[in-house]
Amino acid sequence: MIDTSHKKELEDLQESLRELRELLRRNQDAQAGADDVERTAATMPGPLLTELRSRLDTLHPADVAFVLEALPLEERLIVWDQVKSERDGEILLEVSDAVRETLIESMDSEELVAATEQLDTDEIADLAPDLPEDVLEDVFQSLPAEEREQLRAAMSYSEDSVGALMAFDMVSVREDVTLEVVTRYLRRLDELPDHTDLVFVVDREQRLIGALPISKLIVTDLDVMVSAAMSTEVVKLQPEDRAQEAAHTFERYDLVSAAVVDRAGRLIGRVTVNDVVDYIRERTEAEQLAQAGLHEEEDIFSSVWDSVKNRWAWLAINLVTAIIASRVIGAFEGSIEKLVALAALMPIVAGIGGNSGNQTITMIVRSLALGQLQNARRLFTKEISVALLNGLIWGGILGFVAYWIYDNPELGLVMTAAMMLNLVLAAMMGVFIPLTLDKLGRDPALGSSVMITAVTDSGGFFIFLGLATLFLV
Amino acid sequence: MIDTSHKKELEDLQESLRELRELLRRNQDAQAGADDVERTAATMPGPLLTELRSRLDTLHPADVAFVLEALPLEERLIVWDQVKSERDGEILLEVSDAVRETLIESMDSEELVAATEQLDTDEIADLAPDLPEDVLEDVFQSLPAEEREQLRAAMSYSEDSVGALMAFDMVSVREDVTLEVVTRYLRRLDELPDHTDLVFVVDREQRLIGALPISKLIVTDLDVMVSAAMSTEVVKLQPEDRAQEAAHTFERYDLVSAAVVDRAGRLIGRVTVNDVVDYIRERTEAEQLAQAGLHEEEDIFSSVWDSVKNRWAWLAINLVTAIIASRVIGAFEGSIEKLVALAALMPIVAGIGGNSGNQTITMIVRSLALGQLQNARRLFTKEISVALLNGLIWGGILGFVAYWIYDNPELGLVMTAAMMLNLVLAAMMGVFIPLTLDKLGRDPALGSSVMITAVTDSGGFFIFLGLATLFLV
Repeated sequence: MIDTSHKKELEDLQESLRELRELLRRNQDAQAGADDVERTAATMPGPLLTELRSRLDTLHPADVAFVLEALPLEERLIVWDQVKSERDGEILLEVSDAVRETLIESMDSEELVAATEQLDTDEIADLAPDLPEDVLEDVFQSLPAEEREQLRAAMSYSEDSVGALMAFDMVSVREDVTLEVVTRYLRRLDELPDHTDLVFVVDREQRLIGALPISKLIVTDLDVMVSAAMSTEVVKLQPEDRAQEAAHTFERYDLVSAAVVDRAGRLIGRVTVNDVVDYIRERTEAEQLAQAGLHEEEDIFSSVWDSVKNRWAWLAINLVTAIIASRVIGAFEGSIEKLVALAALMPIVAGIGGNSGNQTITMIVRSLALGQLQNARRLFTKEISVALLNGLIWGGILGFVAYWIYDNPELGLVMTAAMMLNLVLAAMMGVFIPLTLDKLGRDPALGSSVMITAVTDSGGFFIFLGLATLFLV
Repeated sequence: MIDTSHKKELEDLQESLRELRELLRRNQDAQAGADDVERTAATMPGPLLTELRSRLDTLHPADVAFVLEALPLEERLIVWDQVKSERDGEILLEVSDAVRETLIESMDSEELVAATEQLDTDEIADLAPDLPEDVLEDVFQSLPAEEREQLRAAMSYSEDSVGALMAFDMVSVREDVTLEVVTRYLRRLDELPDHTDLVFVVDREQRLIGALPISKLIVTDLDVMVSAAMSTEVVKLQPEDRAQEAAHTFERYDLVSAAVVDRAGRLIGRVTVNDVVDYIRERTEAEQLAQAGLHEEEDIFSSVWDSVKNRWAWLAINLVTAIIASRVIGAFEGSIEKLVALAALMPIVAGIGGNSGNQTITMIVRSLALGQLQNARRLFTKEISVALLNGLIWGGILGFVAYWIYDNPELGLVMTAAMMLNLVLAAMMGVFIPLTLDKLGRDPALGSSVMITAVTDSGGFFIFLGLATLFLV
């Protein structure tokens, strides 16, 4: 499957998925009427089942995960039943939270304990939050003492910390031996842990003192001492560090792996770039979903009711801000009755404020992430200048449009003034909201957008209708 | 700098930045009145200048880039002047587009040509779009024939292709030699290219036939043949493949490097995980900016006028859709005059449609990215069911609120009906818009949001005011 050009491989995957679905459909036709999942799978004709299994066996775990993600619940469980049980663990690690939940629900305790047996302790820790209490207890019992401690440690770190990304499989050596000795030691391992680009060098107390790139083991004379060949400029992460910062470190220094040390400087694990890439992808995805008030637990196969539950909080918040804006308008009903053009023009004033405010917020959030923000006052001045200029340009144009449509020059002037003021309000809040969230230790990317829209809607209506009431009606 | 725990390192960086700024400020005080950048730098007292330089010399290129990003233009150029010229190239690669432009503008042709001398051809290709025509010509002339060809090839690939991520530095061997021979060959190289986890195996015609993990070189007997030790299950990318798909491949199969082959299967380069990480980060950032109608060329130090230019197109599009919505309202001015409560309630109907439609779009865009979308009809049915249920719940509540505020039961019923209809409209368009963009080969994440808001605003006003006109006034 992987031994193909990349495009072909993706096509193969889509093709496998089509064929799997075809197999499932043919079975459904044969069993028309049987609507119980268990029974459907159990009564699937032998040859079809064999074909399904052998097709799955040729797929990389990540590709099986892809197939499972793309299938509706019923078909997903039939396919899952046919996956070899020793591959269950690695596939559970690859699927998304929503799909993992459905797979775990379909497995009994024994199957779940068996699934963890092929996994490293840090991987078990990743699954742990989704496992039933009693299964987790059994897993703990089945582990040797050292791994049990590792699992307990790995589970104790918060989701967004380096500890959660950390793995325990790594190679470390002493500095007072030759590269020859190191090479002989590595040979005895048969296979190095994945993503081993560095062998860590520790002292007697397990304190990290350097790292030896394994490429050096190949290009350097074997009678050189580790202490002479190693690099002492090594990145040290701590398990309590934020995962986001570790990701920046990997990005900045182009790392493949990095050591994790405890407060005493003792080597306790390492982070590898594949986990960092997964973390970046998951975080980006979670952020995008969160900006629309969604959680990862929903996917397109979730039930209608689950979807409604997932989305309600966001809609509720937005409705509350909409009702407030509506009451602002309500306060000016008298003016609108006298000059009904106000009703048609007011959403324009509110809308441009929201758009412009969101632009400011996006700039600020990015600058915060890049560490560019040293001088908030300067920023305020700049954003307000941009707002004034935009207000002059767009407010001028819209003022003219209003004058032209309603043949009312005063209305045009009020329109221009209101747009300028609302843009300035948007600029001020667009700087103020994310900076404040950041100061409070909250993620400025989340929630800023709802808040700015709330302010620019209510504010826009108030400014425009207020000016109109003062000068027009 | 790197030889510290991670947290300390970030603090060090902020500290360096503070100290650099302090140096610059002290100089400014000393030179009060000199406002010309060149002169300011030229007349900076010797000891300060030496201190600035030695501080910069100790920083990793990525950290110098961080410092430059965080400084306003004037201070940035003073610092840039003090960076050792042989480091210019690698630092230019690390900074963002906006900052790179300012740095390149400050350099003369000779400095620019010199800056590229330390770079690999694929890195020069990354800088090329920002270099003046004549500098690029000089760079071409200065390269040996083979590298000139590489540079021409690298520059010919589109920005979002694997070709743009590809590097040319790699190691390849034949299959009919022993690992001992390979090891001796590698030793002669002194140093392996960065991120070399694989040695590629090629035949006489340079066609890729396998890959040898360098960890195997360490743990396997040296008299084994390459053909016996190599893996034939290798990922092959093609330079025309989309970079986005290559990123998925790296993520899915946990790669550190992957071979790039031409149509004939000949090895022409490789992609490494650090470039993939940079690509993912840049793409995410560009998407976030694009969603607010911004380009990367603006940063918080851009001039007011540049900012206005960067933001105008987005505001213009939104204003056009707002004007259309305004005209929809204008068509019902008669109804609003008779029942002014309509003016206060209509933004609620429009707003919830936009919010709900954006939720649908976010779900669909994510599912498209995960390849989950096989059955659009099923999805339509589900989203419309969710919309109907949400309409029943929220429309019901808001209908009651409207009845309660305005003491008008018919108005409440119209409110409920309008909210349900607009939510259904939002659901339909929320599925239709991203699927259509995707079918047309456009990025469904971009533009969907503006379109859905345009539809749900105009549609919401039309539905609500239309129903009110039919049944209330």
